[in-house]
Amino acid sequence: MVNYPLGTRNTQSFGHKSKPHLDTFSRRGMRLEEEINDANTYYLVNNIAVIYKKPTPITIVKVDYPHRAAAKITEAYFQKPSTTDYNGIWHGKYIDFDAKETKNKTVFPLQNIHEHQIKHLKRVIEQNGVAFFIIRFASLEETYLLPAHIIIDFINNNSKAKSIPKQQIEEAGFLIPTKLQIGLDYLAALEAWLGVD
Amino acid sequence: MVNYPLGTRNTQSFGHKSKPHLDTFSRRGMRLEEEINDANTYYLVNNIAVIYKKPTPITIVKVDYPHRAAAKITEAYFQKPSTTDYNGIWHGKYIDFDAKETKNKTVFPLQNIHEHQIKHLKRVIEQNGVAFFIIRFASLEETYLLPAHIIIDFINNNSKAKSIPKQQIEEAGFLIPTKLQIGLDYLAALEAWLGVD
Repeated sequence: MVNYPLGTRNTQSFGHKSKPHLDTFSRRGMRLEEEINDANTYYLVNNIAVIYKKPTPITIVKVDYPHRAAAKITEAYFQKPSTTDYNGIWHGKYIDFDAKETKNKTVFPLQNIHEHQIKHLKRVIEQNGVAFFIIRFASLEETYLLPAHIIIDFINNNSKAKSIPKQQIEEAGFLIPTKLQIGLDYLAALEAWLGVD
Repeated sequence: MVNYPLGTRNTQSFGHKSKPHLDTFSRRGMRLEEEINDANTYYLVNNIAVIYKKPTPITIVKVDYPHRAAAKITEAYFQKPSTTDYNGIWHGKYIDFDAKETKNKTVFPLQNIHEHQIKHLKRVIEQNGVAFFIIRFASLEETYLLPAHIIIDFINNNSKAKSIPKQQIEEAGFLIPTKLQIGLDYLAALEAWLGVD
């Protein structure tokens, strides 16, 4: 790792957050993202799936072109994302998901899920894609794959609810196993949901 | 459009180019990208497909957090991309492609296609995804959808070739029609290739 000068931050692992705050740098959040990226690398090199995290969308305003050096962006801003963080293909199926984390032990707060994500995942479902959330209860070290339609239905039926009970996630979701080499093997949970081809 | 100060450039529409040069700002290149983005917007709002251009991957080094203002990125660099520019879902099918342009009238120069793109599209094909290139002969105002396996096979069989004859693209590819409202209706060409569901 490079050491950054004082007053600056390493933001390489920025997720698709519309308003980057200090919270964004939460170690936990970073860890979940890194674990998913590691699993994706494992799936990729073993020809299991082709799934990537999308780059953070950015509006570039100024670029310097120093002689004999790489172009340097000197002014840019975070854009509001319109999709989820991850998509790709697995066994001919279009895969689309976002990863979320909570320290809460009994409920998952719905404020973590943004309207544009729900809208995007609804569209994916309409096109017969596979849409889900990866939800981690960090304090409990439990991570679930939850089909997106469960969240969508819950919001439709409980428009004033601020959270979804963990029990419902346990019942409708699929616990993601941790495996040597792969780490967070979320495709195993996906197989448990969809069945193996 | 915002007017940028002298000495700066608007680079919002940067594609996945590993080495941004002045060429990147070619109006023609911008136009093809914009036409594809416009088609994608049409497909999205009409529930035909969910296909996006991926953001340009960037390594962020420094971010300023001014009070009461949006976070400002003050140092960042272009990353080498590892995939293609566009992916998404259409009728349950995973779609993955890149868009290329040449002023040449008789051949398409293969230097436009990067190794990481070929590698990625091979993986997509192995997962039963739909992989292709959109190739524009700008001087002729003709744009083709060319299945990726045609390019892959051509490169395999002609390892020293620096270009693929236009005639081969005409024969193996599908001319993309321009339509009122949609613009570059590349999904019509995709239907011509795959058949309609």
